[in-house]
Amino acid sequence: MSENTISHKVAIAGIAETAYYKRGAADRSEFQLTLEAILAAAEDAGLDVRDIDGFCSYSNDRNDPPRIASALGCKDLSLSNMFWGGGGGGGSGAVANACAALVAGYSKYVVVYRGLAQGQFGRFGQGSQARTVSGGPAYTQPYGLMSPAQTFAMRVRRFMHDYTIGHEPLKAISMASYHHAQSNPRAVMHGRPLSEEDYENSRWIVEPFRLFDCCMENDGAAAVIVTTAERARDLRQKPAYVLAASQGSDYRQAATAHNAPDYGTSNFKTVAARLYAQAGIEPKDVDVCQSYENFTGGVMMSLVEHGFCAPEEVEEFMTLENFKAGTGKLPLNTSGGNLAECYMHGLELITEAVRQLRGTSTAQVQDPRISMVCSGPMVQPVSSLILSKE
Amino acid sequence: MSENTISHKVAIAGIAETAYYKRGAADRSEFQLTLEAILAAAEDAGLDVRDIDGFCSYSNDRNDPPRIASALGCKDLSLSNMFWGGGGGGGSGAVANACAALVAGYSKYVVVYRGLAQGQFGRFGQGSQARTVSGGPAYTQPYGLMSPAQTFAMRVRRFMHDYTIGHEPLKAISMASYHHAQSNPRAVMHGRPLSEEDYENSRWIVEPFRLFDCCMENDGAAAVIVTTAERARDLRQKPAYVLAASQGSDYRQAATAHNAPDYGTSNFKTVAARLYAQAGIEPKDVDVCQSYENFTGGVMMSLVEHGFCAPEEVEEFMTLENFKAGTGKLPLNTSGGNLAECYMHGLELITEAVRQLRGTSTAQVQDPRISMVCSGPMVQPVSSLILSKE
Repeated sequence: MSENTISHKVAIAGIAETAYYKRGAADRSEFQLTLEAILAAAEDAGLDVRDIDGFCSYSNDRNDPPRIASALGCKDLSLSNMFWGGGGGGGSGAVANACAALVAGYSKYVVVYRGLAQGQFGRFGQGSQARTVSGGPAYTQPYGLMSPAQTFAMRVRRFMHDYTIGHEPLKAISMASYHHAQSNPRAVMHGRPLSEEDYENSRWIVEPFRLFDCCMENDGAAAVIVTTAERARDLRQKPAYVLAASQGSDYRQAATAHNAPDYGTSNFKTVAARLYAQAGIEPKDVDVCQSYENFTGGVMMSLVEHGFCAPEEVEEFMTLENFKAGTGKLPLNTSGGNLAECYMHGLELITEAVRQLRGTSTAQVQDPRISMVCSGPMVQPVSSLILSKE
Repeated sequence: MSENTISHKVAIAGIAETAYYKRGAADRSEFQLTLEAILAAAEDAGLDVRDIDGFCSYSNDRNDPPRIASALGCKDLSLSNMFWGGGGGGGSGAVANACAALVAGYSKYVVVYRGLAQGQFGRFGQGSQARTVSGGPAYTQPYGLMSPAQTFAMRVRRFMHDYTIGHEPLKAISMASYHHAQSNPRAVMHGRPLSEEDYENSRWIVEPFRLFDCCMENDGAAAVIVTTAERARDLRQKPAYVLAASQGSDYRQAATAHNAPDYGTSNFKTVAARLYAQAGIEPKDVDVCQSYENFTGGVMMSLVEHGFCAPEEVEEFMTLENFKAGTGKLPLNTSGGNLAECYMHGLELITEAVRQLRGTSTAQVQDPRISMVCSGPMVQPVSSLILSKE
């Protein structure tokens, strides 16, 4: 490894989110929601919002840094950075980009943010209506792979086929999110528990995904403030130190590359290897995990590729009991995540990972030291993040 | 300054470009052109192209890293990064992002690239046909500010008014580019010298810009390989070390912010200050400069904001003689740049800055030690780069 890694040099010092809406924050635009989240994150950190000088987002965020910096009255703009990739693959990757800019000395306080008003703009779940002149979609859309659910279903099917895995792990992942959402008043699905029967009676979207295997579509915004470890210690909150942040993907794993040599993958193989090497820890050291759910099947593959169990052990390991905060071996998506808290494109997973280290989660794991986030399975590129209490 | 700056830790180890076309590389797509440039840059560096693991571009480049990595057979993808901003503001900024990822230890060999086939896609000069739901253009387009030339003309006018500057400096900048293009066989305007008379008889596009004050529109691609200084020393070429790379903009300087407090600006004020502080040099130490020409007026303001002369000294300092390689005080755009070599969105300025340090320019300055690039005046954000022989 390089001597210039980011470990322990950078920390998340502030977190916040707007209210999360099932659909349509009718009185506020996506831009306003984004500003609200950034203002609240600065307040959480005890930082004057005008001292933020760096801006990172992902997935073609529509709220560009010059407009935000101008609206907030920021004194300087030293970083305007987009994790280049669609879907939720860039949540941890945008934090990674913030960390790199901080250790390079470009910026002092970087905000990583994501605003989404799918009411104001398009809905992801409807699939792409873009005119595609080249690349994968041009070849797959004519065969009916229009929406994300359709595109990713076959990857999960292949994985389930290769390792003889049934539907129980997918159900456990879905139910864990709904379980944790019941103690989280921010969650869109707070007060709407999901029973096994509800899950099993829900309609197919695309096999192997039932309704409750699919993420929601919501409006809102979330933001985290990233700064050097040194500066973080001067701010209001206990810092969540970044141990490692990794991004990318394996060779030839584009979401639409249906001729990929290793088809049943979440794309985390090389990313996870680099992540653990950078952090100097092993999967068994992880105390709590937030894993991006576009679809439950992607979570299953992500956890395997992050080394929490072998593919052959999925049915035994991936149970509701193991995923519950308090009793579980690997507490998972403790805020409710994309399925039951809010689909804030996975940035809400990063705020929750920080809350766990602060001890302020609504489904708190007992004294966790290491908190992980996996962002965006099956898209390309993906990314992961390891945070540490010390 | 932070102790973790990039200075001397990172270098440009390979450069290349495709043939440059006036319009329409009819037999090759933008994606193919991009691949060709990357292959040639790896060849120039003496690097197996499959060892490239990081990818940076800017201005909503259409050629995304997963597709490129897959087409080239790259072994891993560890960085997929977009400088977030339109126009040519991100050429140096994309190099800055590559440097940050390298010092953070994410990647080993990063390619910064830009492919453009304005024949295959849209022409920048035609102006935006985007539906703009918010932000500046929604307020300015109804008043006739449709194209980049229209948008930027007023800024330059204001600067010229404030400091009582006539047209001579703009002419000198234009003629310097054409002068240098005559010794550069790659240049689209090679063999088409520009006389004072030609310039003065050319038509107005938007006052104060005549035809020859405006950049061309071309097809082609260019690429540079960035790696750690240590790795660069093991490769084929003499490394061009990165002394500093800076990006961003001053407070409230969006291109369309016509109510900005400091209106007649190229947006480089805070960027240049951070650049020189990081590099530990002064303007007088710069031996040769490539300054992005969307329009000559932007170059004039960029040079002032990078401290080469005071606004009051522009007419005296900015003469053709001062800009010529060989005789000039500040050799400028020695390949012909965006005006006369090729509008490769300013990435061709970075390859030329490296050539000057290697001693292989077709308008070579005698033994330069410090080579500068200014990317994208008047857009927001902008960026700058300082390279060093040692």
